[in-house]
Amino acid sequence: MPYFDHNATAPLVPAARAAWLRAQDEVWYNPSSPTRAAARVRIRLETARGQLAQFLGGEPGRIVFNSGATEGANAVLAHWARLWPPGARVALSPTEHPCVLEAARAHFGETRIAWLPVTHEGVVRVVEVEKSLSTAVAGVVVMAANNETGVLQPWMELAACCRRVGVPFLCDATQWLGKLPGSGLGGAGWVIGSAHKFGGPKGVGFLQVGPAAENFCAQHGGTQEQGRRGGTENFPGVIAMLAALADAETTKVLFETERLRWRKNFERAMVAAVPGAMVVAGGAERLWNTVSLLLPHGESERWIARLERRDFLVSTGAACATGKAGPSHVLAAMGLAVDEARRVVRVSAGWNTTEADWAALAEAFAAAAPEVQSAANLVKT
Amino acid sequence: MPYFDHNATAPLVPAARAAWLRAQDEVWYNPSSPTRAAARVRIRLETARGQLAQFLGGEPGRIVFNSGATEGANAVLAHWARLWPPGARVALSPTEHPCVLEAARAHFGETRIAWLPVTHEGVVRVVEVEKSLSTAVAGVVVMAANNETGVLQPWMELAACCRRVGVPFLCDATQWLGKLPGSGLGGAGWVIGSAHKFGGPKGVGFLQVGPAAENFCAQHGGTQEQGRRGGTENFPGVIAMLAALADAETTKVLFETERLRWRKNFERAMVAAVPGAMVVAGGAERLWNTVSLLLPHGESERWIARLERRDFLVSTGAACATGKAGPSHVLAAMGLAVDEARRVVRVSAGWNTTEADWAALAEAFAAAAPEVQSAANLVKT
Repeated sequence: MPYFDHNATAPLVPAARAAWLRAQDEVWYNPSSPTRAAARVRIRLETARGQLAQFLGGEPGRIVFNSGATEGANAVLAHWARLWPPGARVALSPTEHPCVLEAARAHFGETRIAWLPVTHEGVVRVVEVEKSLSTAVAGVVVMAANNETGVLQPWMELAACCRRVGVPFLCDATQWLGKLPGSGLGGAGWVIGSAHKFGGPKGVGFLQVGPAAENFCAQHGGTQEQGRRGGTENFPGVIAMLAALADAETTKVLFETERLRWRKNFERAMVAAVPGAMVVAGGAERLWNTVSLLLPHGESERWIARLERRDFLVSTGAACATGKAGPSHVLAAMGLAVDEARRVVRVSAGWNTTEADWAALAEAFAAAAPEVQSAANLVKT
Repeated sequence: MPYFDHNATAPLVPAARAAWLRAQDEVWYNPSSPTRAAARVRIRLETARGQLAQFLGGEPGRIVFNSGATEGANAVLAHWARLWPPGARVALSPTEHPCVLEAARAHFGETRIAWLPVTHEGVVRVVEVEKSLSTAVAGVVVMAANNETGVLQPWMELAACCRRVGVPFLCDATQWLGKLPGSGLGGAGWVIGSAHKFGGPKGVGFLQVGPAAENFCAQHGGTQEQGRRGGTENFPGVIAMLAALADAETTKVLFETERLRWRKNFERAMVAAVPGAMVVAGGAERLWNTVSLLLPHGESERWIARLERRDFLVSTGAACATGKAGPSHVLAAMGLAVDEARRVVRVSAGWNTTEADWAALAEAFAAAAPEVQSAANLVKT
């Protein structure tokens, strides 16, 4: 079944599976136990921390292993809200993931959020961030790559700009990591990520704390993670995450150019095969794996069902928004009308997706189009 | 290597390993994706929730899957602190796990903690809780079984007592689950647990919210877990946790009486083999797997090292306190002097520990005793 929903979650890669099993057999002791056997787990855990820091080009001492990006976003925004003066606002791109938006609403309140304007392609402009930094904004959150559209943000410039004025910056790198090189994120201030988006296990991720993170504590309890997150360390999960990331960073990301070409060919084929179909943020720099398609007719659910009957798994915007009323906040921020946003289907490939899979997907869309249209007409009647 | 540190972490049981691998192969889709394939994961996740509720004798709708007991304790105490009037205090047993103690200090502050008196065996008396409930205490936290001593608390009576006066009760069942039947915890109000303590994977656990838990949210983000914890559900972890728990609940706990006998034989052998050795809280009802030994001489680390050379892994009090200065807060609360607490070694067996393992451990202690003593004398000289 050709799987085009990698931005929701990716299958566990063989290297991660092997690393997890090996750890369960050999390195499963509690790293905090006072035995030599446990000390060996501690050493391996610190080695993993060093490896992750190396991939990001950052410092091992700033890496906190946790349960994923949602935990990370919540912990950072709660920490900022505790530290900052009551009036200070946090600046967010309106296209951020719900974990950032909802954590900001919970910890700051709607009135203390400064919304960064985005272009019609959903891109935050550096000049706007510079402007906001002069108006009582105490911190900025912008993601590296958007989960719904694949649009890349100028996070390196944004981080540099925040660094210059000494304002903390949080970069949600969840969709970037494993798809593009993580190098540079080490200099981006606060960073969050989730293993399962790049072939690691679910329930594990990391947070890179900012350069000034005294008294940061995500979970009170034991002294694990330098006192920044109590709770028994999930070493098997961590080492599996690192195996997946190493797999991507050392071999897969070398093939980005080729995959970008496949994606573009698919987009061309789609536009030709389904008259009226458009690529959302078509002109923006986007991940090699993600295409957000605005279809000429039929609600997204209909397309998804028709494609699943043809053995293709595709999705709507954000997986975690399923069941929520209302269309995507990302597409709304980009200026799409409600009825347009309801016709958007997200396609997100993985490293194992072949050129032939992309071509077959375009054909499946073409074959589904008349079925979706006739069903849509039926509804209208 | 006979492993006697199960209270720190237990090895993954075969059923959990198999369940995790099967889920990674077949049920790895994001349960929030809008496909039928993903809907099947949602159904399986809800089945797992129902199973857990059944083991606890509780309601599936009150189970929140999370990353473990430390996350659970932090989330509950943060939630209570948000809800309660500024003066309201939380009552804790001084023998609680650091995740409860530190979360209470962080969210309430030392002055808003009411310490429940414990007997010299570390047992909270129901009458004391009843007394505290009449003095501006807005909630109570008491664990089911202590991680350092194995001492059982009268959690069912405490829960009933809190229920009568309408005060929330949090029961940390982390060391109880998988060792004794979980049945009854469903009626105990708020409950937390961690899979890796009973043979499930690390990084996964659960929280049972109290009967009145409106607006409870551990992690803001998507609508997962009925909006109570955003973030992609770790279904492989959850199903592996359930496999481990089912394994314990349906077969293992039947053998409690036999294991209790083995533990008692070990205690008798120890006291005979190492003159002056004592069992901490020897008269209290304790878990069948845990013995906290107060040794006549030599610091715990020395005993642990000598036993490890003989291939036995034992521990000090709480694994997560390693590296912390100062002796165990649990032993201090029970009235042990500082120099006594430094001579305590914790032994915690698993279901695979045999009667012969227990006997061999007592012999290893006996063999280590003169070595530890001569080293201790050397230090004194």
